[in-house]
Amino acid sequence: MSEIRIPLGFKTAGVACGIKKNDKKDLALIVSDSLAEAAGVFTKNQVKGHSLKWTMDKVKNNKIKAVVINSGNANACIGSKGDRDAERIADITSKHAGCDKCQVLLGSTGVIGFPLPMEKIESGLYEAFSQLGSGNSKDAACAIMTTDTFPKEVSIDISLSGKKVTLYGMAKGSGMIHPNMATMIGVLLTDAFISQEMLQNALIAVVNKSFNRISVDGDTSVCDMVIILANGKAANKKITQENEDYETFVAALEKISVSLSRMLAKDGEGATKLIEIHVKNAPDNDTAHKISSSIAKSPLVKTAMFGHDANWGRILTAAGYSGAVFNQDMIDIFIGDLLVCKNGVGLSFDEDKALEILKQDEVKITVDLKMGNSEDIMWTCDFSYDYVKINSAYRT
Amino acid sequence: MSEIRIPLGFKTAGVACGIKKNDKKDLALIVSDSLAEAAGVFTKNQVKGHSLKWTMDKVKNNKIKAVVINSGNANACIGSKGDRDAERIADITSKHAGCDKCQVLLGSTGVIGFPLPMEKIESGLYEAFSQLGSGNSKDAACAIMTTDTFPKEVSIDISLSGKKVTLYGMAKGSGMIHPNMATMIGVLLTDAFISQEMLQNALIAVVNKSFNRISVDGDTSVCDMVIILANGKAANKKITQENEDYETFVAALEKISVSLSRMLAKDGEGATKLIEIHVKNAPDNDTAHKISSSIAKSPLVKTAMFGHDANWGRILTAAGYSGAVFNQDMIDIFIGDLLVCKNGVGLSFDEDKALEILKQDEVKITVDLKMGNSEDIMWTCDFSYDYVKINSAYRT
Repeated sequence: MSEIRIPLGFKTAGVACGIKKNDKKDLALIVSDSLAEAAGVFTKNQVKGHSLKWTMDKVKNNKIKAVVINSGNANACIGSKGDRDAERIADITSKHAGCDKCQVLLGSTGVIGFPLPMEKIESGLYEAFSQLGSGNSKDAACAIMTTDTFPKEVSIDISLSGKKVTLYGMAKGSGMIHPNMATMIGVLLTDAFISQEMLQNALIAVVNKSFNRISVDGDTSVCDMVIILANGKAANKKITQENEDYETFVAALEKISVSLSRMLAKDGEGATKLIEIHVKNAPDNDTAHKISSSIAKSPLVKTAMFGHDANWGRILTAAGYSGAVFNQDMIDIFIGDLLVCKNGVGLSFDEDKALEILKQDEVKITVDLKMGNSEDIMWTCDFSYDYVKINSAYRT
Repeated sequence: MSEIRIPLGFKTAGVACGIKKNDKKDLALIVSDSLAEAAGVFTKNQVKGHSLKWTMDKVKNNKIKAVVINSGNANACIGSKGDRDAERIADITSKHAGCDKCQVLLGSTGVIGFPLPMEKIESGLYEAFSQLGSGNSKDAACAIMTTDTFPKEVSIDISLSGKKVTLYGMAKGSGMIHPNMATMIGVLLTDAFISQEMLQNALIAVVNKSFNRISVDGDTSVCDMVIILANGKAANKKITQENEDYETFVAALEKISVSLSRMLAKDGEGATKLIEIHVKNAPDNDTAHKISSSIAKSPLVKTAMFGHDANWGRILTAAGYSGAVFNQDMIDIFIGDLLVCKNGVGLSFDEDKALEILKQDEVKITVDLKMGNSEDIMWTCDFSYDYVKINSAYRT
């Protein structure tokens, strides 16, 4: 997955239209040569942004030609003007792209409660269309960032019915990432030929194993989504049911989604490391997930990881208040491959070895319940001074 | 509630026995002249400390003579030695106090997974008994602290059937405070004459309006409890049912418990201010509490408060992911008495006024759902650099 390539028939652009300060890119455009099947998964927050509502509505019954995403302003909680602005962005885009406004999807991320600067966006769109190309996806990946420190994109090639098919994804975090779909936007593109129904099924299956397995601070936002466009340009045999091609496609989609998810967790606000929480041998999936999620959200676990402190008591504590039922006297906890708690009791482990593990930029915590065969994985990051710094004055 | 007085017939002491470094007090002792009725409310964490388990077991069927609480070590997750150590502390105490070991309650708070230094505790108990007095409750309040920055105690006098009755409380926080009963220990003492049943009822009613309404970081711990002892020395007419005296008693108990709870939130780890979240005009209590709790736990709201940032979008966002159902287009949000969001839409408010409000050491956030008559209050604190600092190296 080293060299990034976007699928056949897609072009992208990313420009700075002036929503963000300091000439940072803030408007991303993606256009497909032909109308694409599309699917989406959206925030579960009861409060929803205006751009998000547009996209949730349009993705259901339309083939899609273009996607416009702005960063720096969430277009949320503005009242009816927010809805009108969303429609207007779609309308302007559709005139450039030569499609119906219902064939344009939108995304907005950033501060809540301020109207979008529509003149800037309008001229930004004009510029973005002039820059559309197949080799500049990084510009688009940069333009969707808020507090992310690096753009996140990944691509992979697979073979379906003898044809080369490309899957590409870009995503942004980096605070408020939490199931489900919190302040994260993911755009997945593929030239695979696949029905809308199977595309939606694939997306839901994959999101639950990737983007919904990240937690940065437990907050979930009002504007967040993962969408996928499939324009069929690879000319593979159309996927219309669960067959071998579908499995291959889903596996590849999962691969790029997990890869993006890990990047999102690693780039959590102020993060110095990626933390993978692996709960295994649980009696069922729900138990495993309750525990992994509780540990991933615990500020005490996350600050301990920042401080290179092998404080397994906090891991056990977070498991204990997760709501899951388990046997305290059977639980084993590993930090990396170091057993620190056996059968619920702390071991006198090698602190130097622990420190060495905790100083890596990826740390794995394993919790073994010894009760069954189910497991769950969550990705999170540590909790640092910089998280507080970034979030104490974000709006101003 | 200015001058602190402990009720008739109680004596306390607080000593430094060497569990904590730097000669800090770490062993608190409370003894009642006569056997007292007792009641308790305990952590809901599935993992429970050994001292806590002792107390949960003994409080049910015994009158109580003494309470011993150590800080610096949670006596949790040690295996059977932890249970034996708890019993041994009770046994030693009972010999000093002249009672049965089942009449001794225990508490432990601090780091998880290390055995208690029993020799230090044994000699500490000896010293504590030599220092017992009725004027040194502050020593005991200091000895139960972990990362608290100040001891928390409060007392109040009331009149029951013509007799003066005193209620006293001490508590410790300060991280991991969250419903239910997380890393907090509260000890309430009264000379009221009241049946065990009514004492337990009163405690449960009051805890739900006070200690269970605090959140510092959403973590809940394995050792935490509120216990109350009532020794009857005030010689009021015994409370055995819900009558006027009971109501007076509960109101006073609530007053001291709310007072302690606010101190706990204000002294949350690294906190610079107390934040009160008031959700009003909710359709029912559950909706109100889901929203207040979600806002109180949000790291993004708490960091914004630290940064004096009137970021109401984060407040609305936290309400949105609380799981409560409400009408986004009706919600009003106040910071102090400043309306910042009306009917779900941001107002262009006076930022200088907002800054002035946010710079106070107590900030009230009000969320008006305009859907009914129910309300809920939560107390929390802001999220600062110092929270991270305190928690990134707690164990070492």
